[in-house]
Amino acid sequence: MTELIGACARQVAGPGTRVEAVSPSMGPASIESHYDEALAVPGVLAEVARGEAAGAAGYVIACFGDPGLDAARELARGPVVGIAEAAMHAASLLGRSFSVVTTLARSRGRTWDLADRYGLRALCRGVRACEVPVLELETDPLANAKILTECRAAVADDEAEVVLLGCAGMADLCQALTAELGVPVIDGVAAATVLVEGLIRLGLITSPRGEYAPPPPKPYAGLLARFGAPTQPSP
Amino acid sequence: MTELIGACARQVAGPGTRVEAVSPSMGPASIESHYDEALAVPGVLAEVARGEAAGAAGYVIACFGDPGLDAARELARGPVVGIAEAAMHAASLLGRSFSVVTTLARSRGRTWDLADRYGLRALCRGVRACEVPVLELETDPLANAKILTECRAAVADDEAEVVLLGCAGMADLCQALTAELGVPVIDGVAAATVLVEGLIRLGLITSPRGEYAPPPPKPYAGLLARFGAPTQPSP
Amino acid sequence: MTELIGACARQVAGPGTRVEAVSPSMGPASIESHYDEALAVPGVLAEVARGEAAGAAGYVIACFGDPGLDAARELARGPVVGIAEAAMHAASLLGRSFSVVTTLARSRGRTWDLADRYGLRALCRGVRACEVPVLELETDPLANAKILTECRAAVADDEAEVVLLGCAGMADLCQALTAELGVPVIDGVAAATVLVEGLIRLGLITSPRGEYAPPPPKPYAGLLARFGAPTQPSP
Amino acid sequence: MTELIGACARQVAGPGTRVEAVSPSMGPASIESHYDEALAVPGVLAEVARGEAAGAAGYVIACFGDPGLDAARELARGPVVGIAEAAMHAASLLGRSFSVVTTLARSRGRTWDLADRYGLRALCRGVRACEVPVLELETDPLANAKILTECRAAVADDEAEVVLLGCAGMADLCQALTAELGVPVIDGVAAATVLVEGLIRLGLITSPRGEYAPPPPKPYAGLLARFGAPTQPSP
Amino acid sequence: MTELIGACARQVAGPGTRVEAVSPSMGPASIESHYDEALAVPGVLAEVARGEAAGAAGYVIACFGDPGLDAARELARGPVVGIAEAAMHAASLLGRSFSVVTTLARSRGRTWDLADRYGLRALCRGVRACEVPVLELETDPLANAKILTECRAAVADDEAEVVLLGCAGMADLCQALTAELGVPVIDGVAAATVLVEGLIRLGLITSPRGEYAPPPPKPYAGLLARFGAPTQPSP
Amino acid sequence: MTELIGACARQVAGPGTRVEAVSPSMGPASIESHYDEALAVPGVLAEVARGEAAGAAGYVIACFGDPGLDAARELARGPVVGIAEAAMHAASLLGRSFSVVTTLARSRGRTWDLADRYGLRALCRGVRACEVPVLELETDPLANAKILTECRAAVADDEAEVVLLGCAGMADLCQALTAELGVPVIDGVAAATVLVEGLIRLGLITSPRGEYAPPPPKPYAGLLARFGAPTQPSP
Repeated sequence: MTELIGACARQVAGPGTRVEAVSPSMGPASIESHYDEALAVPGVLAEVARGEAAGAAGYVIACFGDPGLDAARELARGPVVGIAEAAMHAASLLGRSFSVVTTLARSRGRTWDLADRYGLRALCRGVRACEVPVLELETDPLANAKILTECRAAVADDEAEVVLLGCAGMADLCQALTAELGVPVIDGVAAATVLVEGLIRLGLITSPRGEYAPPPPKPYAGLLARFGAPTQPSP
Repeated sequence: MTELIGACARQVAGPGTRVEAVSPSMGPASIESHYDEALAVPGVLAEVARGEAAGAAGYVIACFGDPGLDAARELARGPVVGIAEAAMHAASLLGRSFSVVTTLARSRGRTWDLADRYGLRALCRGVRACEVPVLELETDPLANAKILTECRAAVADDEAEVVLLGCAGMADLCQALTAELGVPVIDGVAAATVLVEGLIRLGLITSPRGEYAPPPPKPYAGLLARFGAPTQPSP
Repeated sequence: MTELIGACARQVAGPGTRVEAVSPSMGPASIESHYDEALAVPGVLAEVARGEAAGAAGYVIACFGDPGLDAARELARGPVVGIAEAAMHAASLLGRSFSVVTTLARSRGRTWDLADRYGLRALCRGVRACEVPVLELETDPLANAKILTECRAAVADDEAEVVLLGCAGMADLCQALTAELGVPVIDGVAAATVLVEGLIRLGLITSPRGEYAPPPPKPYAGLLARFGAPTQPSP
Repeated sequence: MTELIGACARQVAGPGTRVEAVSPSMGPASIESHYDEALAVPGVLAEVARGEAAGAAGYVIACFGDPGLDAARELARGPVVGIAEAAMHAASLLGRSFSVVTTLARSRGRTWDLADRYGLRALCRGVRACEVPVLELETDPLANAKILTECRAAVADDEAEVVLLGCAGMADLCQALTAELGVPVIDGVAAATVLVEGLIRLGLITSPRGEYAPPPPKPYAGLLARFGAPTQPSP
Repeated sequence: MTELIGACARQVAGPGTRVEAVSPSMGPASIESHYDEALAVPGVLAEVARGEAAGAAGYVIACFGDPGLDAARELARGPVVGIAEAAMHAASLLGRSFSVVTTLARSRGRTWDLADRYGLRALCRGVRACEVPVLELETDPLANAKILTECRAAVADDEAEVVLLGCAGMADLCQALTAELGVPVIDGVAAATVLVEGLIRLGLITSPRGEYAPPPPKPYAGLLARFGAPTQPSP
Repeated sequence: MTELIGACARQVAGPGTRVEAVSPSMGPASIESHYDEALAVPGVLAEVARGEAAGAAGYVIACFGDPGLDAARELARGPVVGIAEAAMHAASLLGRSFSVVTTLARSRGRTWDLADRYGLRALCRGVRACEVPVLELETDPLANAKILTECRAAVADDEAEVVLLGCAGMADLCQALTAELGVPVIDGVAAATVLVEGLIRLGLITSPRGEYAPPPPKPYAGLLARFGAPTQPSP
């Protein structure tokens, strides 16, 4: 899936942009609960710290729960954008309503929370689950059919004017679904990629003042001890 | 000012993008009231209709009141983005709060309304007027000083983490202010340019279903008769 | 339809009130899109300017999208009330919920926007379209039947305690529908007429300070040149 | 004060309208706490019940806390309007912001609650207390000066475009304050009078379905036993 | 029903707590309208005044409309908690959504209002009426079946994660329903009892400053004359 | 500080309750950024998993950012309450407004976010920082003086009716501040302790359906591998 995500990002990136798709070296194999999401964050932050050491200009967090977004912004100098955030903001520029088609029903609450957080709940008509677990998106022979069914319901029943794909693992379906549905279908990976690229081109960075100022250094204990010096390349 | 705006857009546009900056051929010399804004819209729509005839891929509405945004979206096939909209969305990706520095106090209400409309009022800490009329931005020798004063107050008093320039005519100050203030300063013209470019690169168009479907053709009377056939090149 | 609207207003106006119903001399034959609405506004403003020259004491904007309301308030000295605004405020005095029955589905978004703008979205249970275009309200033999069907659904399905007629062209159905439905049915034309009359009787005018202060005069170009001197009788 | 309130209402009422100003026969001498307000309601309801028996066409509740509004609507057939409700709705038609000048600081919370309830909190810039108890409005020689001071601050500091008088006992100051302040000043008694009159003229009644349906009759105990048969003339 | 309520409270109260369940000596036999609720308040306040004289440490208002809550807080020194308030706050600690099962449909609006007031509307998925009047909860042989039906619909159709019993008279069903439904079922009487006890144990009292300061004493007239001296034991 | 927190909890816990105060074995020494907070969560979850294995009946998360609350609720069978959550809910029962006095200014955004999340932003008048880092609360000889200064400003300037201590490390000041300020001062540790105890006494558990259902088991990689089997005692 990391391959797939990288390919989707590269497809929309501008000529001068190098995309590196990485999968965290620690944490859950997929994110399907608050528990998974919380435990995915250290791995995300370790990758951001590594990116900082390597001089990355910006970051896309390629999970539709946007895990670790605030913490990553404190850590990185360049812009950081989550794929749910990118998809929702982009949708708001193309229509007056959107629905999200996601994997499992239990993730719907998180999506609504993000729509709230980004100020776009009023535009969100529905969050629909195809009930295919993330790791089966590539193996379930009916996965695409189930996704299409929910997308159609988003347009017909929710009257959504735009459809968002609620999982990075669905990124490759974007064009086929757009053709089928007759409304814009947004893959957050692609949307976040052009947003981050755009912010970099504008010379904009995350605000170094206030809530996203670099975290004060301090001792860290136990298993996570090496996170205590975030701006060092170690974690 | 149209020159200035075009230059700012070209500065951030990608290599393959041709930017055409146009000033409507009808309407007010500047927009400083609801009255001006309402009467600027026909000119905006005429330019969009002309753009459609000429095959424009997308549009930036370069006035911080985003006049005619909904109507332009009905008219255009490609994406349309307003500069207030672009600046506010971009700000939300870089900090947890922003203030807007605008021209006249009487426009502040419109800016708050737009923050509401885009779902971002909770992030808006203040809308500050430098009390320089739009048309004097280029002639008042103290204009820049007055703008800087308000920007400083935005950071110091509002504790804004990002500052937005609330008039397309301030676009050229962006870099100098960023250097001075130590927080990101966003010019909506540049922000909207990269957003529209990005949406085009993603292959996304305004949703043809629902609220932004093309307007049903009908007779138009009097002075505005030629707007009756919007998809024709005439208006 | 202008006749019908004038008659409805006169029916509820007090003895000393003279109602003049006018149709703008420029713009669309009916309003069924953001495009139509934006282009209806110059005509509305020209009529308000004419009214000011003629000494009108107040204004009703008789289209359920309340086009040009803010700009008209800047222009007029006396009160200006839109019919959606009037109907929604009146409904809030008679029940804890209302639904709107409008013409085309694509206008529903505008109605929800207005409910937001007036602070009354929490009371709005639904916006239902009878799918009769404005100009066919008088010619479609089934128009009234379709309107009644939606009104019944508003009461039965939305559990609306009050029903609003979402088009000035439905004004004459108000009494018959009230009798049929058993809940108050509000025609915005009538509601706005008594509101404007009431404000005038109270000696209240639009606030001359802040957002509705008279627009600063300035040059206007092209087709709209004569709008440059709004307080002059010319436009 | 009942006299004064009646006089203010009569001054704005239309020619065919008879205004009867009554003071409840039970309850507190003035309303300056939630406790007072709660205990004012039985008296208000007894008067409404009496009005129903006498064929009253509509009601104004002349206390800025709008006590008993929901219950009165269940009881009465004709429209019932509170003076805070009327003043706030009227203000929303005349400007984009208002402040309220009330008697005691401890009532401010109630006013904000009402602004919420009526959907108009976004317009409310401030609630200011002159710290003159209701019953001293007529005796404190500095009462008017204190009220004027707060009204001026509402305009200068809150930048309110409209000022509301937050107590029925201030009704007679309305015109003088308007002249002094240069913005509309609204007395809720007058505003509610024209609103109720207007609703009556429109033939509108409180919705008999849903939340304001007549209360189901039932036994009442003790001191309040006679409220058990509300539609009977007794209470 | 007072017996039942007292028993439910005693069942959850700590060892050192004495629960006294009282029914007001004046007012309606049950609360099923705004009218009933308004007229229940004097009786509630008289009991609180009696409790104060007797040294009660805190109060539960055992009706799901939380009648007289604000006024009771002004009157009492110790904490006062309503059962709707307690149930909704507790639900927010156990799930991300709840539905309320109440008696009559006409009370639903009041429940939504309370969810608003307590800031928890976003969690409320539905308010469902079993259409059994309060006084028939103990006599209607199908009452429990009807309640269960609505609880099941709350879980299955609203997807509520927690169910609230919307009437003190349902308190004894709590355990059986929990077992049946597989989600937490909250009885507000029990919830409010532990909340009040907890606040007392923390040494917390209602804030004596601001909105809940003791009401200023003043003359009261007529039937309610003895409420004029609330801190005296008389009412 | 863990000692102090345990002592505060034990002071308010009921006779039959055993309080075990634990400090996570991994993560930051204090929480003063989003980064710290994100990296505190694995340690919190490890403690919850250990508690589950040991049969803990419920949990208090004793950091005012409520880190890991959602994930902990998925993991634990008994109730889990955060101290910010507890303090804010308790405040809402005692007054109509509160302010929070916290450690560092950069944490204020998080507190506002939590007020939003719990539905109580409308009651929050201010979040004030004493600018004493968490780890210096016990060593800075002026720490208490700085806290008192901000508490006084909360009452005098914010007009807060209740004051919340925004850090578990301030728990022992609660009584002295209450005496000094004359308004209720709430320590979240104590408040959360009685809330969790109360929920347990009511027999209520976190809803096992929907958003807080146990997380689906799955492989975890790298440093966090042992979190892959959360219900096992290992992590």
